[in-house]
Amino acid sequence: MEHLVITIGRENGSGGRHVGEELAKALGIKFYDKEILAETARQSGFAHEFIAENEEKKPQFFWGTGAFYMYEQPISVKLYIEQSKIIKQLAEKESCVIVGRCSDYVLHGYKNVVNVFVHAPLSARIARVAEREGLSEKDAKTRINKTDKARAAYYNYFTNQIWGEAKNYHLCVDTENLGIDGTVEMIKKYLELLKH
Amino acid sequence: MEHLVITIGRENGSGGRHVGEELAKALGIKFYDKEILAETARQSGFAHEFIAENEEKKPQFFWGTGAFYMYEQPISVKLYIEQSKIIKQLAEKESCVIVGRCSDYVLHGYKNVVNVFVHAPLSARIARVAEREGLSEKDAKTRINKTDKARAAYYNYFTNQIWGEAKNYHLCVDTENLGIDGTVEMIKKYLELLKH
Repeated sequence: MEHLVITIGRENGSGGRHVGEELAKALGIKFYDKEILAETARQSGFAHEFIAENEEKKPQFFWGTGAFYMYEQPISVKLYIEQSKIIKQLAEKESCVIVGRCSDYVLHGYKNVVNVFVHAPLSARIARVAEREGLSEKDAKTRINKTDKARAAYYNYFTNQIWGEAKNYHLCVDTENLGIDGTVEMIKKYLELLKH
Repeated sequence: MEHLVITIGRENGSGGRHVGEELAKALGIKFYDKEILAETARQSGFAHEFIAENEEKKPQFFWGTGAFYMYEQPISVKLYIEQSKIIKQLAEKESCVIVGRCSDYVLHGYKNVVNVFVHAPLSARIARVAEREGLSEKDAKTRINKTDKARAAYYNYFTNQIWGEAKNYHLCVDTENLGIDGTVEMIKKYLELLKH
């Protein structure tokens, strides 16, 4: 694979999606976040809304229903498999930025993949989510905690690694002091140094 | 505090000490790693060798000796307190690079502190330690696992945070692809962007 793929893991409210969009623009390459949902819908036949509701969630196992799962994969496992296929297709086709969905892990072993994790202190993330979504600080905090708990559970379940642990990424940046533009600059610097 | 302090946490064999030395040279500021031991020895009255043997270790509690510890702090707690005092003195006195010893946590709330974590895949760290210490790969791996286990236990015990978790640091860099010089460049870039 000769393309350059940058995966971005992100804490909710850290500006990770925004960083990814700006980076893709600066590099003149494609950007994939929720776009992966549409592609999964197209290729898998699942409804778009159904995927949006169920993706990036780890399987729920209920005691007493075990017999069912012996014959049928939980839906989130099927979605993970479908999304992973699409992530690999995208990475093989062209240079791009891919946000979330364990893409760092899915592309493990591929050359020219740079894995980035973007985070920020909770106070900064509350402020960002409250403003973006028009929520109270309390509701923003609840949303962030719920989203990050789900992301961590999803990542840890499918990868056997720990979400947000520095060792899984080539570069981790706190966006609080640098902002979106500064964080993009850091990633660009990393890519520039890689070439030497 | 008007000084600039860069703390560096590091996986064993990732080149963290070397990164710190080169960064301090490039910025023309002081570098503290084992130098903190000498200062702790000077100020605390503990013997230098004794500190080297006991620092960066979490307290060992043995069942049946609890009564003793009710009256006497474990030695590693005393050393942590002494080292923390010295780390704060250094940070208040002058710009510097400080390696390890929970310095990111000790200086929490201080302005102008940038916390960096440096890591690398195990294979790269084994190669580095084997060459540096003249060890077999097997022995280098044993050394790395033992050292990092102790560092993580020490950090997690005293800080209630998780060693190597991205959120504790402003910047985390994998040294495998960038090398020492590239990692120093990344930290310098971060500092440069901070000024804007």
